[in-house]
Amino acid sequence: MAFNNSRIGNSKLAEQGLNSWQWANSRMGVISRILNEFGKTKPLNQTKLGLCLHITKETSVLVMAALRLGAKVTICSANPLSVQDDIVAFLFSKGVSVFARRDETVKQYKEGIKEVLNRRPEVLVDDGSAMHIVAHSSGSEGIVGGTEETTSGIRRLKILEKRGKLKYPVIGVNDALSKHLFDNKYGTGQSTMDGIIRITNLLIAGKNIVVCGYGSVGKGIAIRARGFGAIVTVTETNAHRALEAHMDGFIVKRLIDAVSEGDIFITCTGQIHVIRKEHIIKMKSGSILANAGHFDIEIDTKYLKSNCDDRYLVRRYLECFRIRGKRVYLLSSGRVVNLVGSEGNAPEVMAMSFANQLLSIIYICRNHRKMKRAVHDVPMEIDQYVALTSLKSLGIKIDKLTDIQLKYSNSY
Amino acid sequence: MAFNNSRIGNSKLAEQGLNSWQWANSRMGVISRILNEFGKTKPLNQTKLGLCLHITKETSVLVMAALRLGAKVTICSANPLSVQDDIVAFLFSKGVSVFARRDETVKQYKEGIKEVLNRRPEVLVDDGSAMHIVAHSSGSEGIVGGTEETTSGIRRLKILEKRGKLKYPVIGVNDALSKHLFDNKYGTGQSTMDGIIRITNLLIAGKNIVVCGYGSVGKGIAIRARGFGAIVTVTETNAHRALEAHMDGFIVKRLIDAVSEGDIFITCTGQIHVIRKEHIIKMKSGSILANAGHFDIEIDTKYLKSNCDDRYLVRRYLECFRIRGKRVYLLSSGRVVNLVGSEGNAPEVMAMSFANQLLSIIYICRNHRKMKRAVHDVPMEIDQYVALTSLKSLGIKIDKLTDIQLKYSNSY
Amino acid sequence: MAFNNSRIGNSKLAEQGLNSWQWANSRMGVISRILNEFGKTKPLNQTKLGLCLHITKETSVLVMAALRLGAKVTICSANPLSVQDDIVAFLFSKGVSVFARRDETVKQYKEGIKEVLNRRPEVLVDDGSAMHIVAHSSGSEGIVGGTEETTSGIRRLKILEKRGKLKYPVIGVNDALSKHLFDNKYGTGQSTMDGIIRITNLLIAGKNIVVCGYGSVGKGIAIRARGFGAIVTVTETNAHRALEAHMDGFIVKRLIDAVSEGDIFITCTGQIHVIRKEHIIKMKSGSILANAGHFDIEIDTKYLKSNCDDRYLVRRYLECFRIRGKRVYLLSSGRVVNLVGSEGNAPEVMAMSFANQLLSIIYICRNHRKMKRAVHDVPMEIDQYVALTSLKSLGIKIDKLTDIQLKYSNSY
Amino acid sequence: MAFNNSRIGNSKLAEQGLNSWQWANSRMGVISRILNEFGKTKPLNQTKLGLCLHITKETSVLVMAALRLGAKVTICSANPLSVQDDIVAFLFSKGVSVFARRDETVKQYKEGIKEVLNRRPEVLVDDGSAMHIVAHSSGSEGIVGGTEETTSGIRRLKILEKRGKLKYPVIGVNDALSKHLFDNKYGTGQSTMDGIIRITNLLIAGKNIVVCGYGSVGKGIAIRARGFGAIVTVTETNAHRALEAHMDGFIVKRLIDAVSEGDIFITCTGQIHVIRKEHIIKMKSGSILANAGHFDIEIDTKYLKSNCDDRYLVRRYLECFRIRGKRVYLLSSGRVVNLVGSEGNAPEVMAMSFANQLLSIIYICRNHRKMKRAVHDVPMEIDQYVALTSLKSLGIKIDKLTDIQLKYSNSY
Repeated sequence: MAFNNSRIGNSKLAEQGLNSWQWANSRMGVISRILNEFGKTKPLNQTKLGLCLHITKETSVLVMAALRLGAKVTICSANPLSVQDDIVAFLFSKGVSVFARRDETVKQYKEGIKEVLNRRPEVLVDDGSAMHIVAHSSGSEGIVGGTEETTSGIRRLKILEKRGKLKYPVIGVNDALSKHLFDNKYGTGQSTMDGIIRITNLLIAGKNIVVCGYGSVGKGIAIRARGFGAIVTVTETNAHRALEAHMDGFIVKRLIDAVSEGDIFITCTGQIHVIRKEHIIKMKSGSILANAGHFDIEIDTKYLKSNCDDRYLVRRYLECFRIRGKRVYLLSSGRVVNLVGSEGNAPEVMAMSFANQLLSIIYICRNHRKMKRAVHDVPMEIDQYVALTSLKSLGIKIDKLTDIQLKYSNSY
Repeated sequence: MAFNNSRIGNSKLAEQGLNSWQWANSRMGVISRILNEFGKTKPLNQTKLGLCLHITKETSVLVMAALRLGAKVTICSANPLSVQDDIVAFLFSKGVSVFARRDETVKQYKEGIKEVLNRRPEVLVDDGSAMHIVAHSSGSEGIVGGTEETTSGIRRLKILEKRGKLKYPVIGVNDALSKHLFDNKYGTGQSTMDGIIRITNLLIAGKNIVVCGYGSVGKGIAIRARGFGAIVTVTETNAHRALEAHMDGFIVKRLIDAVSEGDIFITCTGQIHVIRKEHIIKMKSGSILANAGHFDIEIDTKYLKSNCDDRYLVRRYLECFRIRGKRVYLLSSGRVVNLVGSEGNAPEVMAMSFANQLLSIIYICRNHRKMKRAVHDVPMEIDQYVALTSLKSLGIKIDKLTDIQLKYSNSY
Repeated sequence: MAFNNSRIGNSKLAEQGLNSWQWANSRMGVISRILNEFGKTKPLNQTKLGLCLHITKETSVLVMAALRLGAKVTICSANPLSVQDDIVAFLFSKGVSVFARRDETVKQYKEGIKEVLNRRPEVLVDDGSAMHIVAHSSGSEGIVGGTEETTSGIRRLKILEKRGKLKYPVIGVNDALSKHLFDNKYGTGQSTMDGIIRITNLLIAGKNIVVCGYGSVGKGIAIRARGFGAIVTVTETNAHRALEAHMDGFIVKRLIDAVSEGDIFITCTGQIHVIRKEHIIKMKSGSILANAGHFDIEIDTKYLKSNCDDRYLVRRYLECFRIRGKRVYLLSSGRVVNLVGSEGNAPEVMAMSFANQLLSIIYICRNHRKMKRAVHDVPMEIDQYVALTSLKSLGIKIDKLTDIQLKYSNSY
Repeated sequence: MAFNNSRIGNSKLAEQGLNSWQWANSRMGVISRILNEFGKTKPLNQTKLGLCLHITKETSVLVMAALRLGAKVTICSANPLSVQDDIVAFLFSKGVSVFARRDETVKQYKEGIKEVLNRRPEVLVDDGSAMHIVAHSSGSEGIVGGTEETTSGIRRLKILEKRGKLKYPVIGVNDALSKHLFDNKYGTGQSTMDGIIRITNLLIAGKNIVVCGYGSVGKGIAIRARGFGAIVTVTETNAHRALEAHMDGFIVKRLIDAVSEGDIFITCTGQIHVIRKEHIIKMKSGSILANAGHFDIEIDTKYLKSNCDDRYLVRRYLECFRIRGKRVYLLSSGRVVNLVGSEGNAPEVMAMSFANQLLSIIYICRNHRKMKRAVHDVPMEIDQYVALTSLKSLGIKIDKLTDIQLKYSNSY
């Protein structure tokens, strides 16, 4: 079978994975606090969870927590290039069914999803909604609800909902304040720059970096690129966001107008073909293209592949395309550069995202009968709980309203 | 009469005000574009507007635009210390009824509001809702609707609405994205630091600055204080905002824990008695207190006044209180430091706010019959229009979705 | 006589000046510590000092300290537009001979220098070397030495020295680390942006600001402009500095290439005609020109004046030139914008500069017989003393080398 | 023999090294320009160079350039943990004698130096002066001169010089402006943060990072740490630098006072035992220690090793010490974290450093007979040439002084 590889049962890898889990776990205090609070009652007792996530050490903390709460877990990867093999081996050693491995083919990645669904999970936990989409087309019996981690995935589910085709309630974890304000912005901001630096080892200071998209992710990347000394240009299709970028001191232009001066281009729009033929034609030789969006569609890699004279791998995940007399470099095949080139978002922010996940899963188990077949927000109590608990685990105290202030709040 | 002062008819002041208006007007391109588009149809023909705003050169641009659209305007000040006398003289010379002057007493300020209401305005344009509140208690006949410029003012109106007491529809201009994302953050961020520097002439670099509140205004102030080299501590009562401040690299503490290290304290919470006895007691000698919130209640100035051994004016708007063996300095009597100490927010952002105002006033004139007695959002078309037009007047072009992208947006 | 104006003896102004002095003095702890240490021995006993400085509240702290140390002081202004009249009145009330007033003519300014020299000072304390130059041409008997505050002034004196024409030893205070690293960079950085904002009241966020020169002053301005949200372009003639600006994330270009995109231009090069016809021709309408260098030669104002169709004052220190169909705005007549438009550098940094001045004056009194007719560095002990004492007055403690570390320092 | 390992002749590794060299070479335009200019005359014809450098892809660009100029090269590593094995294999395949491999023992590292010296090099190119020191004790016949890359190494050589023991002239490359202003600050600033993130994968935003030392390296690290959202505290022993850090908006404290709040500690002082028992005792559990200085002496690792209850490797280069009831993490065994944990400084800045190296080597070959046995500065022409050529290869144009300005420069 596709995943019956030697690595999965490798005990040395599993031990390394154990260390990685411990390291991440020690930096994800919110999860520990949830376990302390809910652990005894086993709220996920015997619940079958099907996960399609990036298999990183942070994800292993979520999985181990779900096990502690009583769940049975099957997992595949949300991206063929983002799997960390030591984590696969570690989770396998703990009794989790894992259908994933590093650098798997797209075919294997799709089989992974099917394998998970074949195990008849009750709750689906997805990142990008690929598994939700497959579940909808191939039979979703037994599924009582699900969660979705990303902006891109929620967009897709909302279209399903609008067309009346959503078959079970889903909580859009991404939209919790304590998720997207932090994970997307500060997490992806750092890990994207980290991924680009690991793959290229170039100096960021003085580089012209073009960030396509100024949502949470784009804001995070733009700030961190500047923080490392880059001159940052932002492109947008949304007027308010373009104005925000302008006021934040970034250069704002149409991509076509920015393209001849850029050194590094980073897409994070959730859109298709943001960087395409017309742009690539005008780029200077040596230009570097990276994508930080969920899907590998933001850069038109097909154009590059079909029209280059030659292509070769310079270093791991750094591919050179000779095209129109110049060299254009594509990072991580156009796939999420922060998960492929580096290790994904740091444990401190994944703690917040996965705390929302964990509590949303529990919420679905308890309430799915009452929930509409719709994309639901994370309940405000959960969002609040995660924020407050995060502050606690950081050792930060904040002010409380005095009685006089509470009274003032309700007066005019 | 209270406002029959010599300054109002002073032609030299009026000329200076004319120059100020021209200068501001030349930097508020959105307003000019609206006039070009709507000017001929006189959409405010003979409408009686009652304004309670900070009387600055930017406000004069709004007023002159309203006149151009056919309105009749009566105006008083939203704050006794923020009036610019050259603007008063200029507006008066253009036929506007003005009831305000620099450094007026609180009594005169209140009389100003009454004078405006006595003129039976049809639409009230308020900043802080003081005039709305008076209108509600003293008779609101003839008023068909209103607008409100600030966070603080909208809070008050929503309580009125909740209690079923709101007598006419109000558009909460502050909540337009193209208003609060820009005016509150970048406008007040700059002008607050500007006001503090003008009053004190101190070096910001290396100072410990404590910002109370991390809403739009607080974010703007924190960024600008850091931009001038300060070490910034943020205090909050809201967990999500506290986490944001933490991730933005600010020190986050309870005020009581920050108080002994702070050099300058700035309140922008919309709350009462944020800085009070318990904090002042622990401050070091030389501490400086400033308020950037709408009302002069955020610092408990009563405590200072009642308990000091002595107080004297060091420079304009810089008052020293000798209290408990140390010196504590209060800026602009605890009133909005950016409007009293400097000239208020810059024309570039006020253009966006006042474009929303102008279009909201027109909207109310046209639609008030259909509108509920509630606090309404600025219609999305207006908000969009302002953002797009602002980009145009800045000369910034942004990308448009391609057909393929539009199609992708609707697929899953 | 030219300076026999009514303001100088005005007791209300003098009282205001006293308050200003107290405020500045309370923030210039290093000077107080020097007085505590040297006050009793009166090291300047009966020494006649001739000062040509910007007459600000910070300068009054230097003058009062010199008086406390026994000196007799005569003073004129280093710039016709930078005089603060309350300080003039205050110093006059303390027995200082003052030859300066706000908005004096260039003729009066030159007479001021002559008046000071006529009093036969023994030590000259200059800012820009204008007084040194006059002393050299008109007779320097009795002068035993001098100091110079600025980069520009030291440059001039070094040319005199090179040509063998320097008539007395001068200490170049500017070159002390504890002076130029702080006063020039952080002091002028802040006060220049402050001056520009006070004169124009424009929003800095999103503006294209072009800084000509990336020495200490230029670095300070560039950082602060960015800190307020500007997109900053730097121009340079020095390759190392240009590279530094590039690595610091600023756009680096030739001025001629930057000119059509810039909104605000700031010169701080010490050079003549940095902004001249060829640049002004290519600027867009609405461009704003400011100078932060010592002399009013960096912008070719003659070109503007001779070639404009019209010119008028928009606001104080903001002059509009209609030229070639567009409007170009000149701030503070091309004179140091931070001293004319705002109040000059903040007391915290002037404390360090003036501590070096005060100790250098004492040093000259004691050692002038042994000193060559040359431009001398501030003695290292003084520079060190000022730095250490500044830290103390800020309440900052730093590490000391351990014995093991001291030993290591001398090993290989 | 110690270096006769299988990896050195590995052709696949050599090919990977070739790719790495090409990648770095394409980003080091200054070196290419030097080769274009000097290549034909073979200025290093048959010169025997002995190199002790970090063996990275950037170093391979220097080595290949030296070969092109006619030199014969023998090389060992400046640090046992910083060797990149693909580069070793690549250089070996090009006929270079290489005595180094990844993760070699300290014994092997020392043998490497001896092997190089045994080949009787004429010019020594060192990083840290370890090879210079050995050459001085073990016989330096045939050596006509040398260069030194680092602050630490120059310090050692200057002590040798002072004691009259220096046996040949050395050019201190580090002190060229075009070296230390860029490589040390922007290069090490980025690569240190990169190394820490690669080893730990932690979020930097919101972390308390303590930087010990505020020289070029410390400044670079502090800026980049802040650029990624950290709250940065600086410790110093030098008063001027401490003041600079303060004015730059960093918290300045004694290390002992900062220790209980810090999350990550980074040393870059060139000193011994900067972090020692007294500090470690007061740290909180989870503290992370990293060194960015040349030698592994800045953190007292002996104390950690002798006093811990237990130690284990969490991940590569991340070691946990259980000590006094808490966990303290040491990165890369206390060795330069940017070279061990990441790939060292980026090619763009190494280009400037190595251009100075290359031209200094040529200079020594031509002029060593005339040079004193002393530590010499890089000749100003070289420093200038490197800066100007770097600008050219970046495509940046700068202004030139006009005739009027040149004349002004020489007037007073």
